[in-house]
Amino acid sequence: MSTTYTLYYWPGLPGRGEFVRLILEQAGAEYVDVVRLPQEQGGGIPALMSVLRGEHAGMLPLAPPILQADDLYIAQVANICLFLGRRHGLVAEDEASWTRANQLQLTIADLVAEAHDTHHPLWTMKYYEDQKEEAKKRADGFVRVRMPKFLNYFERVLQSNTTGQGRHLVGDALSYVDLSMFQVLEGLSYAFPQAFAHVRPDIPGLLALRDHVTSLPRIASYLQSSRRLPFCEDGIFRHYPELDLSPDETSK
Amino acid sequence: MSTTYTLYYWPGLPGRGEFVRLILEQAGAEYVDVVRLPQEQGGGIPALMSVLRGEHAGMLPLAPPILQADDLYIAQVANICLFLGRRHGLVAEDEASWTRANQLQLTIADLVAEAHDTHHPLWTMKYYEDQKEEAKKRADGFVRVRMPKFLNYFERVLQSNTTGQGRHLVGDALSYVDLSMFQVLEGLSYAFPQAFAHVRPDIPGLLALRDHVTSLPRIASYLQSSRRLPFCEDGIFRHYPELDLSPDETSK
Repeated sequence: MSTTYTLYYWPGLPGRGEFVRLILEQAGAEYVDVVRLPQEQGGGIPALMSVLRGEHAGMLPLAPPILQADDLYIAQVANICLFLGRRHGLVAEDEASWTRANQLQLTIADLVAEAHDTHHPLWTMKYYEDQKEEAKKRADGFVRVRMPKFLNYFERVLQSNTTGQGRHLVGDALSYVDLSMFQVLEGLSYAFPQAFAHVRPDIPGLLALRDHVTSLPRIASYLQSSRRLPFCEDGIFRHYPELDLSPDETSK
Repeated sequence: MSTTYTLYYWPGLPGRGEFVRLILEQAGAEYVDVVRLPQEQGGGIPALMSVLRGEHAGMLPLAPPILQADDLYIAQVANICLFLGRRHGLVAEDEASWTRANQLQLTIADLVAEAHDTHHPLWTMKYYEDQKEEAKKRADGFVRVRMPKFLNYFERVLQSNTTGQGRHLVGDALSYVDLSMFQVLEGLSYAFPQAFAHVRPDIPGLLALRDHVTSLPRIASYLQSSRRLPFCEDGIFRHYPELDLSPDETSK
């Protein structure tokens, strides 16, 4: 593929853009992370706003990330991932394979949305500080019930994928879903270290998958580069200790 | 297509299963809405639980709806819709078309999730009655900001789709996205009649699309049948007047 891609995403945080970046990096694709460029080079928030206003030929997006691939402008993370995965051999081409991958990717998206809502249970347009009490309640159900439920589910999927010998979520090779799973595990262990430590014994396969992705040469190189943005308290995965399990909670 | 489909979804409410039903109905496909069958005919909750436990060959699902199509078991609404849409001519086959349709369908899914969270802002596993105060806060932002934002976005998409002469969301013919949009408009006007009345003047194209879908012979027949389940307060779209705008609020 000789396409040079352009990614439009909020600067300064990995966020949902990171699921796209990981695929582009592993595919060895050329891409411009345009909003991170200086404004005088066509970057910055104005570049993002221009796309959100529909000042281009493609389908209007509601929110970033947006990927430009030639004359296509594509929004919605799972949609971009499916598109890129098919183009770059990060999912098998047959309908059964990509339908399975898409199912898992959408379930990952649900988990990401629930992780986000722990710090924004009431209003996406207000600050965490304006909804801290409610966040505590929402996060309690997340770290005790929902996060373990999702992770145990993905562990089961991994272990039952005999084609992939329990090492890949879909099929017999690395797919974009494995890359996204890596990012979710990174995010959850950053945001909820106590709750994550609590679940670890139940998800040996996922932890091995995470290590495997970390060791892929292109990903390893990416993770060391300045292109990889650290997690922070402006993103989806935020480390607020008051939303995590407390260290002395060890009972299941 | 000679496939007979089996749909697995919670009985007694339209919910997310309805997006799948509308496609099957418009496609004239044979399907069994199996959980609604009596247990002695292989239906009921045990049929659903069996699939959720993974007692079949396909990819394990986390939650319904699940569609069985021959030996494929497919979960996640947008994934099922894309699969069925492609099979039954309810989206064009080229990559640009289905990528656009999928983008919109995922944005519809986001809107549906936000509509759901108005009555369950803190805990999906507890009752609305246990989180009424927080629901009121969450719903306030939804009916004033988020719902209008989403609907105005879809109106813009519709009006800017010159290929479809402003009558279809994607391409020049009816797609599965149009059917899903119909269902969302039905649901929002049921759940939030005051807030919906307030947005109506801004979305003439969407209202015309809704009327168009209602008048499609197969859909019209379906809507009159017992296969169509009414909205209720166990589903996604619930009519709780306290979460809607009050009738005397007329300022934008």
